[in-house]
Amino acid sequence: MTYRSGRHFLQIPGPSNVPDRILRAMDKPTMDHRGPEFAELGKTVLAGMKQIFKTENPVVIYPASGTGAWEAALVNTLSAGDRVLMCETGQFATLWHGMAAKLGLDAEFIGGDWRHGVDPQAVQQRLSADSDHRIKAVCVVHHETSTGVTSDVAAVRRAIDAAGHPALLLVDTISGLGSVDFRTDEWGVDVAITCSQKGLMMPPGLSFNTISAKALQASRTAGLPRSYWGWDEMLQHNARGYFPYSPATNLLYGLKEAIAMLLEEGLDNVFARHARYSEATRRAVRAWGLEVLSLVPSEHSNVLTAVLMPEGESADRLRAVILEHFDMSLGTGLNKLQDRVFRIGHLGDFNDLTLIGTLAGVEMGLSTAGIAHNKGGVQAALDYLAEVAASGQRSQQQRVA
Amino acid sequence: MTYRSGRHFLQIPGPSNVPDRILRAMDKPTMDHRGPEFAELGKTVLAGMKQIFKTENPVVIYPASGTGAWEAALVNTLSAGDRVLMCETGQFATLWHGMAAKLGLDAEFIGGDWRHGVDPQAVQQRLSADSDHRIKAVCVVHHETSTGVTSDVAAVRRAIDAAGHPALLLVDTISGLGSVDFRTDEWGVDVAITCSQKGLMMPPGLSFNTISAKALQASRTAGLPRSYWGWDEMLQHNARGYFPYSPATNLLYGLKEAIAMLLEEGLDNVFARHARYSEATRRAVRAWGLEVLSLVPSEHSNVLTAVLMPEGESADRLRAVILEHFDMSLGTGLNKLQDRVFRIGHLGDFNDLTLIGTLAGVEMGLSTAGIAHNKGGVQAALDYLAEVAASGQRSQQQRVA
Amino acid sequence: MTYRSGRHFLQIPGPSNVPDRILRAMDKPTMDHRGPEFAELGKTVLAGMKQIFKTENPVVIYPASGTGAWEAALVNTLSAGDRVLMCETGQFATLWHGMAAKLGLDAEFIGGDWRHGVDPQAVQQRLSADSDHRIKAVCVVHHETSTGVTSDVAAVRRAIDAAGHPALLLVDTISGLGSVDFRTDEWGVDVAITCSQKGLMMPPGLSFNTISAKALQASRTAGLPRSYWGWDEMLQHNARGYFPYSPATNLLYGLKEAIAMLLEEGLDNVFARHARYSEATRRAVRAWGLEVLSLVPSEHSNVLTAVLMPEGESADRLRAVILEHFDMSLGTGLNKLQDRVFRIGHLGDFNDLTLIGTLAGVEMGLSTAGIAHNKGGVQAALDYLAEVAASGQRSQQQRVA
Amino acid sequence: MTYRSGRHFLQIPGPSNVPDRILRAMDKPTMDHRGPEFAELGKTVLAGMKQIFKTENPVVIYPASGTGAWEAALVNTLSAGDRVLMCETGQFATLWHGMAAKLGLDAEFIGGDWRHGVDPQAVQQRLSADSDHRIKAVCVVHHETSTGVTSDVAAVRRAIDAAGHPALLLVDTISGLGSVDFRTDEWGVDVAITCSQKGLMMPPGLSFNTISAKALQASRTAGLPRSYWGWDEMLQHNARGYFPYSPATNLLYGLKEAIAMLLEEGLDNVFARHARYSEATRRAVRAWGLEVLSLVPSEHSNVLTAVLMPEGESADRLRAVILEHFDMSLGTGLNKLQDRVFRIGHLGDFNDLTLIGTLAGVEMGLSTAGIAHNKGGVQAALDYLAEVAASGQRSQQQRVA
Repeated sequence: MTYRSGRHFLQIPGPSNVPDRILRAMDKPTMDHRGPEFAELGKTVLAGMKQIFKTENPVVIYPASGTGAWEAALVNTLSAGDRVLMCETGQFATLWHGMAAKLGLDAEFIGGDWRHGVDPQAVQQRLSADSDHRIKAVCVVHHETSTGVTSDVAAVRRAIDAAGHPALLLVDTISGLGSVDFRTDEWGVDVAITCSQKGLMMPPGLSFNTISAKALQASRTAGLPRSYWGWDEMLQHNARGYFPYSPATNLLYGLKEAIAMLLEEGLDNVFARHARYSEATRRAVRAWGLEVLSLVPSEHSNVLTAVLMPEGESADRLRAVILEHFDMSLGTGLNKLQDRVFRIGHLGDFNDLTLIGTLAGVEMGLSTAGIAHNKGGVQAALDYLAEVAASGQRSQQQRVA
Repeated sequence: MTYRSGRHFLQIPGPSNVPDRILRAMDKPTMDHRGPEFAELGKTVLAGMKQIFKTENPVVIYPASGTGAWEAALVNTLSAGDRVLMCETGQFATLWHGMAAKLGLDAEFIGGDWRHGVDPQAVQQRLSADSDHRIKAVCVVHHETSTGVTSDVAAVRRAIDAAGHPALLLVDTISGLGSVDFRTDEWGVDVAITCSQKGLMMPPGLSFNTISAKALQASRTAGLPRSYWGWDEMLQHNARGYFPYSPATNLLYGLKEAIAMLLEEGLDNVFARHARYSEATRRAVRAWGLEVLSLVPSEHSNVLTAVLMPEGESADRLRAVILEHFDMSLGTGLNKLQDRVFRIGHLGDFNDLTLIGTLAGVEMGLSTAGIAHNKGGVQAALDYLAEVAASGQRSQQQRVA
Repeated sequence: MTYRSGRHFLQIPGPSNVPDRILRAMDKPTMDHRGPEFAELGKTVLAGMKQIFKTENPVVIYPASGTGAWEAALVNTLSAGDRVLMCETGQFATLWHGMAAKLGLDAEFIGGDWRHGVDPQAVQQRLSADSDHRIKAVCVVHHETSTGVTSDVAAVRRAIDAAGHPALLLVDTISGLGSVDFRTDEWGVDVAITCSQKGLMMPPGLSFNTISAKALQASRTAGLPRSYWGWDEMLQHNARGYFPYSPATNLLYGLKEAIAMLLEEGLDNVFARHARYSEATRRAVRAWGLEVLSLVPSEHSNVLTAVLMPEGESADRLRAVILEHFDMSLGTGLNKLQDRVFRIGHLGDFNDLTLIGTLAGVEMGLSTAGIAHNKGGVQAALDYLAEVAASGQRSQQQRVA
Repeated sequence: MTYRSGRHFLQIPGPSNVPDRILRAMDKPTMDHRGPEFAELGKTVLAGMKQIFKTENPVVIYPASGTGAWEAALVNTLSAGDRVLMCETGQFATLWHGMAAKLGLDAEFIGGDWRHGVDPQAVQQRLSADSDHRIKAVCVVHHETSTGVTSDVAAVRRAIDAAGHPALLLVDTISGLGSVDFRTDEWGVDVAITCSQKGLMMPPGLSFNTISAKALQASRTAGLPRSYWGWDEMLQHNARGYFPYSPATNLLYGLKEAIAMLLEEGLDNVFARHARYSEATRRAVRAWGLEVLSLVPSEHSNVLTAVLMPEGESADRLRAVILEHFDMSLGTGLNKLQDRVFRIGHLGDFNDLTLIGTLAGVEMGLSTAGIAHNKGGVQAALDYLAEVAASGQRSQQQRVA
């Protein structure tokens, strides 16, 4: 290994930069997961995650990637051949759709252009047409990591209710939770899905389901085979702070610290901070004369910004130049966006100065790569952040379109 | 938390004590799992695990507990209703059997008394009787963590071959691999299953499958629904050092270090060390006048020793006394062994002096708890270890019955 | 480096084993030592050390080894040619005496046999004879690390008072503080000297002086040249939580944790624990048929035990055998004790099981090295510890001769 | 503690940001400093420091702050009343001068305006006038941390030689070594002094002297009392990789890593990187319409930039605003520069993006504090860095005035 001076900028939209406090919390001897000390840890993280999810429902924690929590949500609530309604918001919605098919579900997909969130009206229409209630679940991605577009989950809830449809609402908030507001109970989400390496600022390896009473009810008759993902045994053991099989103990140490950090900062402050970085980033992008992939201001992601390359330019070449010269990793364009966009992650353990460093890496990268752009993106972001700081209203600020 | 002086003795049969080198290796910033640096890490750990498994076949790594790797082995190779042959060696064989049933398999269970390993003759008989080859897989636990009994996997292989039966051989070596010899290819194991927190000296959170050509072939037609556990996408991405979904990157940092440590010490030395501790422990148990659960000398575990309590004494009370007074965690008796046995883990990152400390904790605990026993167990172990040290033959030694 | 399984046993009488909590506390970014956050740290450790020293006087902290704090005590209170009275309790008293001479003091040395503590009567006699008060300071080592002999500092104080002599009392409690009781104010100690790597469980690199009003007064006229060690600037900056030059910030992080740990356990419990290990160790030594260097029971060290080798046997060969075969470091014999004694450290972050492991290392080492001894030392220690545990009086116990 | 998102920017001119690799290297159990493994560590760091100092002379390492190494340089080479010639380049030269006086030396001080380096001609004149060679040493600060001005040590050497004067040349390169070129032997430096927390990227707690043959000769007759700092015993023990008293072992672990990192990057690359950041910073300062304290381009520091506040504005208020709003620590103005300058550290483990973040903190701070300035400083720095990156000549670049 050759030493490269300074800290790598990991500005992909997750895993986000893991703060030292979390890494250090994990750097401790593994304990007996059946001993009394463990139960305290188990109860603490299970209760803490309910606060983060804004739910009174139980939360289960899997030693697994987010993909596993997708699977858990499906196999616990559905039976082979069940119809589910999904919405093509981007690559992750597409992958989840593919998973549903693999698991033997009849997965309907409302098409999309990867630049918009879920269309609640389309959902309502489809559900209204489903008079015999063959659709058992509506599955939406709250925050599309591949496009930087947020969907209005509350509106989807209203659409389901307006259609008078009994389908479950399963929501992937993998890249949303802990960075943008998510209200599991208020929005009537039956199963919310997330994982550790985004807003929770952890390394990957843990994922989560919330379970509404209705979802739990569904799980009693759901016929898809399951064992590892089974909620029943999980809930039974969780009640006393334990897990049915070996939990990823050291990741749980980190999770405990992560929850403490989010609550110390205050969730509203966390959300305001992400909104501020998002606005600053878009101002930079516009100043460079580039285009943000997300088209509707109210749907702009606070977690990442996907930027369209000028015609004829390769996003991956730009990313490579930036990695080589400025030691920063940016997110790649996925699937049909490959080489067409790069994604700037501005989430997690992050502050004003690292955001400016990040944007400077992009601006210098554009310049170094010889890609036509206007200067001044960093300046625009910096002016905005200074203005917010001077106004003293950082914590109360709202998202600016 | 109140500070308790000295280091906790985690002498359960896994998770084992995680050495500092591994904890420190994990205590590093998470990297971009799609970047070039990651591919090197991925290739290194995938190749390293092949050495540990003694296989030329591919190994896949799941961000999951060992339970997940059990599930992966089944869902990738079998179809709903398939018959599998399992052997009741103890609690973990029983749990795996239960999982098979949950997943919709027809799981036959050859009964056992929890004090012996798999009976290869019984396997051969059963397979010979299965003339229409309805049995698709034989599933055995190489090393029963609940009883401290090892099964002879090579003999099971020979039994299958002697029966001329095409069933796959799926082997759980969760608590065996990295502590006792395991030869995936030589023994004709189609899928070997393990996880990170035993002989690999890691925290829990990673688990593994090896995949023989025959198993891979079976996976092409196996009908159980699967997505997260699917070998196909795994292998496809692994070929370039990547994973189809976010890997547990920081655990992989630790795994890389763990593999390096095992190879530095030399697998044969690792195995000899575990054999030495096992023999020393049994000498202590006998000196105390207590009984080892495992009945057949050639099947004694080198990883843990399950000790039967004298009639009328509670194993759990003893464990609680030892935890309170001597800050040591021992394994509990599981299922029908509950409160009847305690289990001493003597695996992983461990040396002569910590073994003696461990055995002293048991001897002092028996005394403190007022349980009738003979003194001299520690002395017997110590004399044995000193003798081995003096003979200078630590690395060549064989298991002593 | 070749991996050696298990944790090294660092059983020298300091540095002691640094607990993970302290290592992890140090593993944090260095902060601005002139910023507001630092002042809190500074005040916390300065106040905490007063509790450990049992003093109301100020404590100063040097980024230096204990040797530096010896020098600081001398140069701040004395002038060239001043006579000081020192007592030959062992190698460290001898080194301190040598330092005094190097610094231009007239250092008188009351001879000793390295098996006893300071003789208060001899001190009193000498001071009584010093009718013109040429002796400016009495310098004693509270706890001789080279011999495992403790001196009675309170008795030395009484001797000075009985002689009606105005000399300062400077006391090295380098290996005593934090392991055995030390009462700076009650015993009338003018300058107590310690460092970080013994009872404070830290790595080396910090050392300390307490400063009585009388010592401070002396420093105003003391003529030895000094700058780095100067108390005046230290005290001036310390008042606001700062230091006159860059402090060893990360070691201070560790110190804060160390103080917290000692206070969590409770100093009296800490002392009782060390007394217990000391008694257990001597029982083992006697059972082996070996001789403890310290001759007077009331002076036996609770921190380490120096053991005399049988005639004709080399202590250093035994230590080498133990290091090679059992991965344990023991203390060497120093100066005229070279190769004649080995020293077992039983201090700091240590518990019953690691003590037994330590003694087992010695017993197995004696055996492996072919040195004549009786078996049963470990058993004797173990029986004693079990008895104490059973009596439930671990925290109230007294030193047993 | 309240969690503050993101990483603190420690942009004081030392301690610099300690990279994770170094923190992690220190986060390891302390070893026996008299054992065989230690000797390897000792030899490695002693040899490594010779490479960094570019000397064939021995280097000694003290467990002490840089201030201690100043004292060591003086007390090892000089006698009470000896005259030394010092040059007032700023606060650290002033402090060193004060120390010399405290230690009983006759310290002559060539005055300065704190905006220039040492004037070699003035040195030559003074030495030429000293026909009876009463001046025993010339003491200069290579790199004044309080002003951001570098002195030309080679020119001082030539001045001494031109005067035909036998005085020793003692040089403080505390904030220079490891960031800007320093050639101990080529420049004829008799004692070079540094410490751990600047270019070596370590926490404070270690300091260093190089010792020329002439300095060693002087130490044999030098009369200042010394013990802790004594070179003789140090060199004697160092020869075998050991130290005469407990070394700060864990800091030595870090030092070993630090040396490895500097050599991996390559010293010339390290120097070029610092030169680049220095130039970029000055471009920002000028763009803001502010004034750099250092007046002579060839003397501009590559390690830090001291910036004069506009008339009537408080530097400390600006620093407080920046700390509060942007979580960045800047260096304060010292002594007569108090509140008149702030100092931007751009040294150590640092890269282009963190430099831009740093400068953005200043620009946003000026704005938030309502201090009149021109925008565009960050842009100027960014343009320069992008240009250097595009030119592909980062490693060969020279300092630009």
